[in-house]
Amino acid sequence: MLNPQNRTDHSLSERYLSVRAQTLQLTQSLTAEDMVVQPIVDVSPPKWHLAHTTWFFETFLLKPHQSGYREFHSKFEYLFNSYYESVGPRVLRHQRGFLTRPTTDEVLAYRQFVDEQMLDLIEQQGDALHVWIDLGLQHEQQHQELLLTDIKYILGTQPLKPAYSDHTIRFDQIKPAQWIFIPSGHYFIGYTGDGFCFDNETAQHRVYLDEFSIADKLVSVQDYLAFIHEDGYRRPELWLSDGWDWVQNKAIKAPLYWENLGQNWYCYTLNGFNKINMNEPVTHVSFFEADAYARWAGKRLATEFEWEAACQTIGTEEQNTAQFLEDEILHPVYSPDANGLCGSAWEWTNSAYLPYPGYQQSKGALGEYNGKFMINQMVLRGGSCATPASHFRPTYRNFFQPDKQWQFTGIRLASSEQ
Amino acid sequence: MLNPQNRTDHSLSERYLSVRAQTLQLTQSLTAEDMVVQPIVDVSPPKWHLAHTTWFFETFLLKPHQSGYREFHSKFEYLFNSYYESVGPRVLRHQRGFLTRPTTDEVLAYRQFVDEQMLDLIEQQGDALHVWIDLGLQHEQQHQELLLTDIKYILGTQPLKPAYSDHTIRFDQIKPAQWIFIPSGHYFIGYTGDGFCFDNETAQHRVYLDEFSIADKLVSVQDYLAFIHEDGYRRPELWLSDGWDWVQNKAIKAPLYWENLGQNWYCYTLNGFNKINMNEPVTHVSFFEADAYARWAGKRLATEFEWEAACQTIGTEEQNTAQFLEDEILHPVYSPDANGLCGSAWEWTNSAYLPYPGYQQSKGALGEYNGKFMINQMVLRGGSCATPASHFRPTYRNFFQPDKQWQFTGIRLASSEQ
Amino acid sequence: MLNPQNRTDHSLSERYLSVRAQTLQLTQSLTAEDMVVQPIVDVSPPKWHLAHTTWFFETFLLKPHQSGYREFHSKFEYLFNSYYESVGPRVLRHQRGFLTRPTTDEVLAYRQFVDEQMLDLIEQQGDALHVWIDLGLQHEQQHQELLLTDIKYILGTQPLKPAYSDHTIRFDQIKPAQWIFIPSGHYFIGYTGDGFCFDNETAQHRVYLDEFSIADKLVSVQDYLAFIHEDGYRRPELWLSDGWDWVQNKAIKAPLYWENLGQNWYCYTLNGFNKINMNEPVTHVSFFEADAYARWAGKRLATEFEWEAACQTIGTEEQNTAQFLEDEILHPVYSPDANGLCGSAWEWTNSAYLPYPGYQQSKGALGEYNGKFMINQMVLRGGSCATPASHFRPTYRNFFQPDKQWQFTGIRLASSEQ
Amino acid sequence: MLNPQNRTDHSLSERYLSVRAQTLQLTQSLTAEDMVVQPIVDVSPPKWHLAHTTWFFETFLLKPHQSGYREFHSKFEYLFNSYYESVGPRVLRHQRGFLTRPTTDEVLAYRQFVDEQMLDLIEQQGDALHVWIDLGLQHEQQHQELLLTDIKYILGTQPLKPAYSDHTIRFDQIKPAQWIFIPSGHYFIGYTGDGFCFDNETAQHRVYLDEFSIADKLVSVQDYLAFIHEDGYRRPELWLSDGWDWVQNKAIKAPLYWENLGQNWYCYTLNGFNKINMNEPVTHVSFFEADAYARWAGKRLATEFEWEAACQTIGTEEQNTAQFLEDEILHPVYSPDANGLCGSAWEWTNSAYLPYPGYQQSKGALGEYNGKFMINQMVLRGGSCATPASHFRPTYRNFFQPDKQWQFTGIRLASSEQ
Repeated sequence: MLNPQNRTDHSLSERYLSVRAQTLQLTQSLTAEDMVVQPIVDVSPPKWHLAHTTWFFETFLLKPHQSGYREFHSKFEYLFNSYYESVGPRVLRHQRGFLTRPTTDEVLAYRQFVDEQMLDLIEQQGDALHVWIDLGLQHEQQHQELLLTDIKYILGTQPLKPAYSDHTIRFDQIKPAQWIFIPSGHYFIGYTGDGFCFDNETAQHRVYLDEFSIADKLVSVQDYLAFIHEDGYRRPELWLSDGWDWVQNKAIKAPLYWENLGQNWYCYTLNGFNKINMNEPVTHVSFFEADAYARWAGKRLATEFEWEAACQTIGTEEQNTAQFLEDEILHPVYSPDANGLCGSAWEWTNSAYLPYPGYQQSKGALGEYNGKFMINQMVLRGGSCATPASHFRPTYRNFFQPDKQWQFTGIRLASSEQ
Repeated sequence: MLNPQNRTDHSLSERYLSVRAQTLQLTQSLTAEDMVVQPIVDVSPPKWHLAHTTWFFETFLLKPHQSGYREFHSKFEYLFNSYYESVGPRVLRHQRGFLTRPTTDEVLAYRQFVDEQMLDLIEQQGDALHVWIDLGLQHEQQHQELLLTDIKYILGTQPLKPAYSDHTIRFDQIKPAQWIFIPSGHYFIGYTGDGFCFDNETAQHRVYLDEFSIADKLVSVQDYLAFIHEDGYRRPELWLSDGWDWVQNKAIKAPLYWENLGQNWYCYTLNGFNKINMNEPVTHVSFFEADAYARWAGKRLATEFEWEAACQTIGTEEQNTAQFLEDEILHPVYSPDANGLCGSAWEWTNSAYLPYPGYQQSKGALGEYNGKFMINQMVLRGGSCATPASHFRPTYRNFFQPDKQWQFTGIRLASSEQ
Repeated sequence: MLNPQNRTDHSLSERYLSVRAQTLQLTQSLTAEDMVVQPIVDVSPPKWHLAHTTWFFETFLLKPHQSGYREFHSKFEYLFNSYYESVGPRVLRHQRGFLTRPTTDEVLAYRQFVDEQMLDLIEQQGDALHVWIDLGLQHEQQHQELLLTDIKYILGTQPLKPAYSDHTIRFDQIKPAQWIFIPSGHYFIGYTGDGFCFDNETAQHRVYLDEFSIADKLVSVQDYLAFIHEDGYRRPELWLSDGWDWVQNKAIKAPLYWENLGQNWYCYTLNGFNKINMNEPVTHVSFFEADAYARWAGKRLATEFEWEAACQTIGTEEQNTAQFLEDEILHPVYSPDANGLCGSAWEWTNSAYLPYPGYQQSKGALGEYNGKFMINQMVLRGGSCATPASHFRPTYRNFFQPDKQWQFTGIRLASSEQ
Repeated sequence: MLNPQNRTDHSLSERYLSVRAQTLQLTQSLTAEDMVVQPIVDVSPPKWHLAHTTWFFETFLLKPHQSGYREFHSKFEYLFNSYYESVGPRVLRHQRGFLTRPTTDEVLAYRQFVDEQMLDLIEQQGDALHVWIDLGLQHEQQHQELLLTDIKYILGTQPLKPAYSDHTIRFDQIKPAQWIFIPSGHYFIGYTGDGFCFDNETAQHRVYLDEFSIADKLVSVQDYLAFIHEDGYRRPELWLSDGWDWVQNKAIKAPLYWENLGQNWYCYTLNGFNKINMNEPVTHVSFFEADAYARWAGKRLATEFEWEAACQTIGTEEQNTAQFLEDEILHPVYSPDANGLCGSAWEWTNSAYLPYPGYQQSKGALGEYNGKFMINQMVLRGGSCATPASHFRPTYRNFFQPDKQWQFTGIRLASSEQ
């Protein structure tokens, strides 16, 4: 997680300010009311994200390293701890949406206070601490994506369905998907570069893979509609047993945000409530849906090892790489002020989230960052329209429970057959 | 519910504006964030109260009676209907706290719009409609009390425990309680006056009562502390069976808002978090607690008929009446700007909320106002520091489920023994 | 509860043996498997009833009064206590159906053992203890009715729907219902006779009632079918608010045990699964259904005071009494060997189960018998085909929560109009 | 799953009868009452196991292949289907414990009927169908193990804690654990032999493994007690996040069946309730406990690939193999009449249950046997004292959710360090 990086303090300050500003920018079009609520337990209030990312710097940088630092408020440690048992007790996750105090204005003052202290700390000890500061920034960028998906959920489940932005956001895949062949052999999986990575991307290790093929495009809305029309949600043989229970118990009939009004399907996007766009990749599907779709299509999902191997292989073939990256991976974080096309999605793999051979959990509170979640979650690879650019990394391991739909999650098919 | 009242249109406008302004005043010290949340299903967001009381006038006055009226927003009927099945579908009660839109500002614009239309309607048809307008105002005043208790819950369950107001609010009972004897005989129960009453206060009917005694004061915090100290919450023989389950399952150890810190009891009040005041009536007790306390004290709760009969009897003895009313009943609604002492409480009776003989439910949607709740609730009589003055009425029947603590609810003892 | 009765010891032994034998007779046609299960928390396993009624005699008679008595098994106090907090801890109610041990044979040995000891105790101290022994027998008879309704539930919810008995059981009401007028005035409510009564039937007290009319027959299956056909279960205006929630959440469409197969309604009876019988009183309706039906019919349910007053009034008019009693009240307990026509039902009243004026709870464990359940339950009067004859008493107060359907519960209409 | 086996029809009949008889033998010491109940949803009633294994032969062998076969009872398809969606609707899993009918006697008649038909079918078409009949027998043997663990749960959670058998059952590990080194390299994982295997053990595939060490013994009760004494259940840093929630929410303090009485730990075994035996392997631990224990010990669990590779490696070293197999693997199924030492346990691995490369789900209903459960479960390897001998196979993949304790599950440590 904590590889040394050659960056000057100067650029560290700049990066710090830039990442912090980007977080705030994402909440610019929200009302004070939007900042508070938590409609499902997975979603955190936007205000909470603003405070928690700040708490992270206060707790892991300022308190241990800034001489004479006095905490902004004695209760914030309790209020804005997410899941760090070793830091102490915390507000229960499902109660985050009841915290009206501190207000957004007070949270902004907290950010301001911590930012000033952090800039001072960077000036004094940036060299020594930049590995930890980088982690704080990576953490904040992860929350930028969560912030956007949580905002989408909050607005998209309002009866009034307000748009988040009026920028036209489209991500069309015009060309049909092609299959890319990946030969059998050894592949080295996991991070070994100079830059930042999370601990769960290590240790790099050798994996033997049989040959397989992988699609160069994600499954489109049009593709997915065929699955719906052929009774995909009503055929138990297409589903994992837990997935079928989920479909039945929650009366799932389509991806999250889709609604069937009369003859047409509509869905909520950050632009508001509109007809579905056939050419986009389907998003907001759970692992259960991705898996069922693949079975219906006579294919399967790739493992995370296959996915990473495919990335490496395609990387040696210029043309494919270019298209692969252009279409799915290198989009900047969504922002109300960006022109960035978007629409790509995290890709469910058929790998459970487990430690790599040789994985070492960090000591102390930061050891709780990744390792303790390695059960009952599936790995996602790639990145979405909401992912900050520096988080697109072939070794990056995202993970969610198999029933989650509220992230920008999609489907890439693979096959063992020729 | 709908008795004619001799009031001029002029005074109707004034009363309309006065009640509506009073509602807004209650929310003056809240932040935008405080307006949104719903920490338990019993509590509605303050913003919702502002909108729902407005919806009531729009739905039952403007839409049917104001010629050419165009609704403020087509979705508000759905958003702000509380429980009127005959008006159509509605947001589920437990989802009120997820509505960030419309914002408070939009709700205030809605209030403004409806107020203007209502003043016009009053001018045109006030004579004909004043019975219904009065009902709307009574309804709004009921929500003023709920608004205040819901605000207290929202603020009082914040980890930061902010005060609602810095006005000193005390309600001390210095003199010890006296027992008032009420002779056996016939009493006429229910409303027959000229003024406004709710349908559940009718029909007036004759009830025969055995003689009994009733305390002239509510049970004080000091009295209640003795119950706690004598293991009141740990002795099943003091509790109704459902009450004992409630105590066990919810780990109840004291009235709502009480916390034991070290050697002392504290509680949250609208002035913030402070040591308990021994001389005040105990409040925020459930029926289960009131009933257990009475059993522990060797007494019982009065029935609602006994309570009303006591009111009538004391009403013929000047001195007692004065004290009875002064201490417990005639306090104006709590307001950040009022100097009103407060602290009195709704009084749990041992009567289930059921229709009086001859009760007739109103036709149409307004028939849903009271009648359909006549099951599994207990009647409360009197009124609290949060009750608007015009709602103090000897025949007024308030009602809540026996486990509810979040209203200003207290205990008055009665006894059949001499 | 504990009125002295002039009965010889001899007859006490006989009554003891007769009641105990009657309980066993009710389980004669069951398999060992039927004796164990608890498909819903309201239902207790038949084996549990056999043991608990025995535990009652052991706990309240033998242990305190039989010199040198050694308990049958040291764990049975824990296993077969129903709800007596003062006796000590007990198996949680919802876990009764997991107790495979002791087996039925062991429970029968327990009964045999306790019976022998009881006969000895009766011989020695019958005079002194007969009040308590009578209570044990009344308690056992109450469990006879529960045993039968629980058996019906266990068998009636089996996919194989086995019959309990092949005796033809019919209870037809051929003549249409007539309305009986009851004049206004004072009535004395509650028990004052020489025989046995429960504490909740006291103290006798005076009640003033307005005039009303009451039907001389229960609502029939045919009557109730009209309510279903006129969308009774789909019209919220007919229901109490909690009742409407119950209908929606549980998808209630008919009384318990009814199923609509194609064009016809069938229902499970103790004779098996058959077409409904139009002429019988409808049974297995909840209070919510009884209340909704009455509203649909333009009538209401009687209060328990009206019901008892009607009993007294009709009792002075020979002809009515005879019919009233013959049709609805004086049927012997159902038994596989009885020829007794049956079909009548406990009648929901619109009275909450609350203490009478002057009610005194017994001291000690037996004080838990009735008083602690006086919340959130509605009173039923009369008796059913499953009620032992000695429990038909005009002052008898049965009580259940308003959503319960598994007892033999029906509907008698009343009206305040002439 | 369906490899051809060279076995004569004669031996097929004998094996059929032998396996079927073994199942019945397991229930010999149960009462009729024990056969019915389902104290947790994971546990099925013994009677249900007897019927379901019979249903399997009826549904997949007799109905499609026995000419002129008439089903034993038309409702049994509905009653005894476990989870085969493609066979039709079925009794919900959590309602199995409410089925009192058919009785055990009727289920035994069903077994008898199907056995006679099966013997006839084997005689006529045994050659052609033996692959499927073998599957039925393997299925029945899997249920033999479940039957025993379910019986243990049913008896072990009775307040009376009856013993299942009075045979002394001990499995002591006297010698301390040794570490076995396994070199890095390629290993072939999965089944390729001539005998029976399940589809989830295929396709055989190559896996590259880094070097590691593995213990030659399971963690003992004494070892585990040290973990408890060092606050293992109170230190969140030792637990996966979901595991810590499980510990907190369920108040877990020890393995299933352990109770702390005064100074000593006791546990329920099939011999009854006794002091724990320090030398036995700890059993009835969840994956969460196994994982936390390993972290506390500074080790880790093996992956299922490491486990299988270790089996292969040790298999080439005579001495180790012998010990490995003798201690942990080759014990016959527990039986009241067997003298077999027992006590070994299924070993949790740190591998999620996922398809092998090249895995092909069978067509039709039998395709539901394994594949649809490949989510949110962890693989267990080895076998327990309750596992039939023919199910001990180095490639065998057992699987359960990480919170399950009711199987005979234990812990073997591994390490990447030298």
